[in-house]
Amino acid sequence: MKTPPSLLSLTIDSAVLNLSNISDLSPIPAHILLDLLLRILKAGKLTEKVLRLFIATGKDEVLSLVQALNIQHIFTPVLPTNKVKVLLAFEKHFAETKQDFSLLDNLYSAAQKMSQVNIIDNEVDIVIGALHSDMTSFMNAWRPVFSRFHLIIIKDPDLQEELQIPEGFNIDVYTKSDIDRLVGSSTSVLFSGYSCRYFGFLISRKKYVVCVDDDCIPAKDNTGNSVDAVAQHIVNLKTPATPFFFNTLYDPFCKGADFVRGYPFSLRSGVDCALSCGLCLNLADLDAPTQALKPEQRNLRYVDAVLTVPLRTMMPVSGINIAFNREAVGPALVPALRLVGEGKLRWETVEDIWCGMCVKVICDHLGLGVKSGLPYVWRTERGNAIESLKKEWKGVKLMEDIFPFFQSVSLPQSATTAEDCVIEMAKTVKEQLGKVDPMFSEAAEAMEEWIKLWKLVGSGQSS
Amino acid sequence: MKTPPSLLSLTIDSAVLNLSNISDLSPIPAHILLDLLLRILKAGKLTEKVLRLFIATGKDEVLSLVQALNIQHIFTPVLPTNKVKVLLAFEKHFAETKQDFSLLDNLYSAAQKMSQVNIIDNEVDIVIGALHSDMTSFMNAWRPVFSRFHLIIIKDPDLQEELQIPEGFNIDVYTKSDIDRLVGSSTSVLFSGYSCRYFGFLISRKKYVVCVDDDCIPAKDNTGNSVDAVAQHIVNLKTPATPFFFNTLYDPFCKGADFVRGYPFSLRSGVDCALSCGLCLNLADLDAPTQALKPEQRNLRYVDAVLTVPLRTMMPVSGINIAFNREAVGPALVPALRLVGEGKLRWETVEDIWCGMCVKVICDHLGLGVKSGLPYVWRTERGNAIESLKKEWKGVKLMEDIFPFFQSVSLPQSATTAEDCVIEMAKTVKEQLGKVDPMFSEAAEAMEEWIKLWKLVGSGQSS
Repeated sequence: MKTPPSLLSLTIDSAVLNLSNISDLSPIPAHILLDLLLRILKAGKLTEKVLRLFIATGKDEVLSLVQALNIQHIFTPVLPTNKVKVLLAFEKHFAETKQDFSLLDNLYSAAQKMSQVNIIDNEVDIVIGALHSDMTSFMNAWRPVFSRFHLIIIKDPDLQEELQIPEGFNIDVYTKSDIDRLVGSSTSVLFSGYSCRYFGFLISRKKYVVCVDDDCIPAKDNTGNSVDAVAQHIVNLKTPATPFFFNTLYDPFCKGADFVRGYPFSLRSGVDCALSCGLCLNLADLDAPTQALKPEQRNLRYVDAVLTVPLRTMMPVSGINIAFNREAVGPALVPALRLVGEGKLRWETVEDIWCGMCVKVICDHLGLGVKSGLPYVWRTERGNAIESLKKEWKGVKLMEDIFPFFQSVSLPQSATTAEDCVIEMAKTVKEQLGKVDPMFSEAAEAMEEWIKLWKLVGSGQSS
Repeated sequence: MKTPPSLLSLTIDSAVLNLSNISDLSPIPAHILLDLLLRILKAGKLTEKVLRLFIATGKDEVLSLVQALNIQHIFTPVLPTNKVKVLLAFEKHFAETKQDFSLLDNLYSAAQKMSQVNIIDNEVDIVIGALHSDMTSFMNAWRPVFSRFHLIIIKDPDLQEELQIPEGFNIDVYTKSDIDRLVGSSTSVLFSGYSCRYFGFLISRKKYVVCVDDDCIPAKDNTGNSVDAVAQHIVNLKTPATPFFFNTLYDPFCKGADFVRGYPFSLRSGVDCALSCGLCLNLADLDAPTQALKPEQRNLRYVDAVLTVPLRTMMPVSGINIAFNREAVGPALVPALRLVGEGKLRWETVEDIWCGMCVKVICDHLGLGVKSGLPYVWRTERGNAIESLKKEWKGVKLMEDIFPFFQSVSLPQSATTAEDCVIEMAKTVKEQLGKVDPMFSEAAEAMEEWIKLWKLVGSGQSS
């Protein structure tokens, strides 16, 4: 037989139900406050506001309980209540094993990282390589996204016409003469074509750099809303990456996602994310042979996911839509591999593919993460793929040598910065790939030269 | 100045536009037929039907051209035309380098694998572990998907009540007495709780096995259509996996997807896929602490993607919604790790997590692939997560030992079948993990026992 509830118990139940009407708890005796607080915890109703009411009573017993439950610094409304519920369950059963709690801490720290990421305007540079002179429709399409940030536009040195850029942006434009003045025209690092963007990476002073090709406009998500690609990239970079173990629900730090059953708790705090690789809707970043084979193919599948590319897994990084932590890996984004017949169409280039392989290996070495997936951009560029086959085929063939090299390359433990890593990698490229194709020796030289430039020009601290 | 078109040229243009009306080409002179065929190729209009018309003319010139272009064995309508276009471009520019064509072949073979997968009813067993006696609503929900296949239902030996299963299915039901009769009751392999399904894996004689927990019903995709989970699993298993290099557009063999620029051509043919891991909507497969922390959390994000989990990347395989190639890896799906406090809720178990780690390592060793992603099922089970913490916590802690073990374990080259691999792994588990927890020694024994059972009962050829 159950004992009927006491009058006090009923009163407390009623108080829990009517929490929102209570503005002062100080007249209530301490032992009742303790009961009430526990009852609120049990009901999952502890919010920051309610917590403040309890703390405002100033009663030692209450403050001790709050402190004992370690809820004083947590302000996400849902979290502390459940944290306490879970802690109570754990405390009851496992108080003896201290180690358990350290694992549990990973659960909470991960959960906290999931809350709103703060995007700070002056931490971000948008770097755009202008390969077309009329930037009007491009800039206007991006206006709602770009206007709060500083933009660096690098005009392709091969482009003759004046750039047309609409008003209303905070932009610095750099042209061939700026490039020549700053890095000299005799350098083996070439900033023409798509590689002009790398000059922007060099002169940026911000923590994060976001890049989008000038033939892309904002995409729409599955619900028809325009995607804020910059915000998504920064969220990707500011939330941890999890390269050591695959999470089947993709990025556990995305809203609504989490670590699944079986994911080791010790790996849940993750590592810093250094590179965020976005994707393209409409025209995917295919190579010329694939594009020629499927001229009508369009990528219309909006895959609503971000994932960490696992440790030691190689990937083809597309430069069309990327962002990176410049402080962590800036020097590793290096313009190095240039095809003899490189043109002004993405599928005629491999500079970004090479650079991506370098960054991935360096991130793996430095214990940093690389994410792929959201955000999408809508890509409109077209060219004649069959015409491009002549130029691009060389790049396709090079990949057969590039892939096994990067899969097996290892960097010495003494390389502890992105600069060190690029220098070490250049050495190995020269030794191992130099004999395969002279293009690789040139790439290695460009990598060494790039690090010199970075130390001279690019190593300024972020503002 | 452009020469005006000839009458013949205009006639051929007209013929290309009106191809569908032409039923016989034999009266047309051979040289005009050659012109027409090339013009059709150029227009991208060569279909199987049109090709048959040309072949039916029996003219040597036509047959030679068809043969020279190597289009005689390709029947996918869109492919051959573009293949020819691409080949012509390549032939023009690179006729001298024979090696190029072997890479190109991978492009075509990959493209061909993307075409419709044929799902053969008698290649598939659906295996269901019945943990609840009333299967009526579960079976009715799955009727449109399951009814064409043979089902194996294993009743949890701990379940007392009679199973209620609606009419209209091709089912074999197995109970405790069947299990005892076939494998004996003294075995260290236990088929109770969720592990009862493994008995179904043992007695199946089909190439593919698909499993769904009995608290899941078909999910709806982003467009509101009911997902055929079995069809998606079989597509995953019948199309190649690509574990050696990450494709940013996910599974390149999904409809509308492809390999991106920079993906090495030599890796595009992929490897056989042996395991397909589906996901859950509504209630994700979280562990008890996470579920306790976020009791209201629901997984509503339908991520429209399948991907190959890369080589050497460990993952937590959920047994809720999986399929596998039984001929290739059946013996590797082993019921081995049993928690002392294991209950009848998924988050109180780790048998599938352990089994998944085994299968992944074995697939990596045997050169087989594992995919994760689609299909989703809609999961409805609930339990009290806080109550479960007591039981489940042990599993969470074990993962901290399990993960580094599986990450570093390597199998000898002499192990060339899934059976060999399980035996070798059991040895290593005993040696390395046995001292950590006696539970691991028991798991190793169960693995050895399982292989004996498999050789005795399970190794029958597929029908």
